[in-house]
Amino acid sequence: MRNIKLTIEYDGTDYCGWQAQNGTRARSIQRVIEQALTKVFQKKISLIGSGRTDSGVHASNQTANFKTDSHLPLTRIRSALNSYLPQDIVIKKAEQVDEDFHARFGAKSKVYRYSVLNAPVPSPFNRRYSLFAPYPLDIEKMKKAAAYLQGRHNVRSFHRARGKQKNFVRTIKKLKITRKNELIFFEIEAEGFLYHMVRIIVGTLLEVGRGRFGPGYLKEILKGKNRKLAGPTVPSRGLCLMRVKY
Amino acid sequence: MRNIKLTIEYDGTDYCGWQAQNGTRARSIQRVIEQALTKVFQKKISLIGSGRTDSGVHASNQTANFKTDSHLPLTRIRSALNSYLPQDIVIKKAEQVDEDFHARFGAKSKVYRYSVLNAPVPSPFNRRYSLFAPYPLDIEKMKKAAAYLQGRHNVRSFHRARGKQKNFVRTIKKLKITRKNELIFFEIEAEGFLYHMVRIIVGTLLEVGRGRFGPGYLKEILKGKNRKLAGPTVPSRGLCLMRVKY
Repeated sequence: MRNIKLTIEYDGTDYCGWQAQNGTRARSIQRVIEQALTKVFQKKISLIGSGRTDSGVHASNQTANFKTDSHLPLTRIRSALNSYLPQDIVIKKAEQVDEDFHARFGAKSKVYRYSVLNAPVPSPFNRRYSLFAPYPLDIEKMKKAAAYLQGRHNVRSFHRARGKQKNFVRTIKKLKITRKNELIFFEIEAEGFLYHMVRIIVGTLLEVGRGRFGPGYLKEILKGKNRKLAGPTVPSRGLCLMRVKY
Repeated sequence: MRNIKLTIEYDGTDYCGWQAQNGTRARSIQRVIEQALTKVFQKKISLIGSGRTDSGVHASNQTANFKTDSHLPLTRIRSALNSYLPQDIVIKKAEQVDEDFHARFGAKSKVYRYSVLNAPVPSPFNRRYSLFAPYPLDIEKMKKAAAYLQGRHNVRSFHRARGKQKNFVRTIKKLKITRKNELIFFEIEAEGFLYHMVRIIVGTLLEVGRGRFGPGYLKEILKGKNRKLAGPTVPSRGLCLMRVKY
């Protein structure tokens, strides 16, 4: 059996996320790609993603793998899949990997980017891919606040309860804030994320940026281990999975 | 009467263009903005655009003007219009201009940009705003060919017949080709454009870039004054009106 790794870009706007909730028939990225795989290989194939992305979240380089006994060349796999996929999902790469490669268990860390349009009026071109924030934002203060989050912490305050999560300690390897013209990017790398974690972190940093929280308040939020202390969850449309590292 | 100039950004994907064809009820950018103006000022107001953009063409800075005897402050005009407009049309600026300012007759030149995604696979994020061209493109050859088009020429070969056009001489002030990662931009500035002119010029330059035409063939196309000599018309989604100069 060959083990094939896919690198996938998608506009998540019109999907319920990478994976459909159990029992629902919603249109998920994974399901749509599995349907294309079935058409290409003429049999049912299960796709293992690096992890879920929520409803409306995008990906520049989501990764996934599947096994097949077909000898179809890799470029043909890519082009055949793309010909069956809708325009908002594209297979960027198909590569053969070691038999024991597992897109989820093998992932060492993930990089997400959240985009904020900080301008007086929204942009028709960016509306699907950014949060519109017309108020002044103090980048330096947000960077100061972000520094408190880097490293290994109990990040329970930045987590939306779902199921019976027990371990809330995560390592934030990088949290970088950059501005490019009217766009502000929050880039976050971690080994693992809690549910809604990036979106709550960004929502909290924006509260700092607009002066509602002081940068030092981040320490209190971490200490408190309580979701209510942190800022709001920003909408999914600004979030994009940039890279999965193995 | 105050004369108000609007600067407008729009995603033209879902519109029949700036202006509806006579007699049709299609959804045009102009009509949608006029409907918002009527709601804001409680009377019918005619909007004069700098010129038409075709169906599916975008604008970063389209300009238009209208007259009103209302004393509503300019920032209120902008925010009120934006609150009535759909998300794919945004008023970026509303400013009071001289009584004799006319968005169309006063325009000295216009800058259009055409975007080509030159990559092995298409991009979900750029699909509404660029032409996907997976084949190799020789930028240097396209630049050489573009140089023949700069200046004052009879550009009849780069024109789709419509109505009874008589004067085909236009001055191309600038034709710049740049690459930024996988995107190639064609920026064209002219005092006036013929119907489909930018899209036929780009279609012709792409033929040069992929080696189907030599750069020098551009001279023949100009000389021939015949649409059939030039390359194909590229799709409207890659085209964006960047600026109108007064």
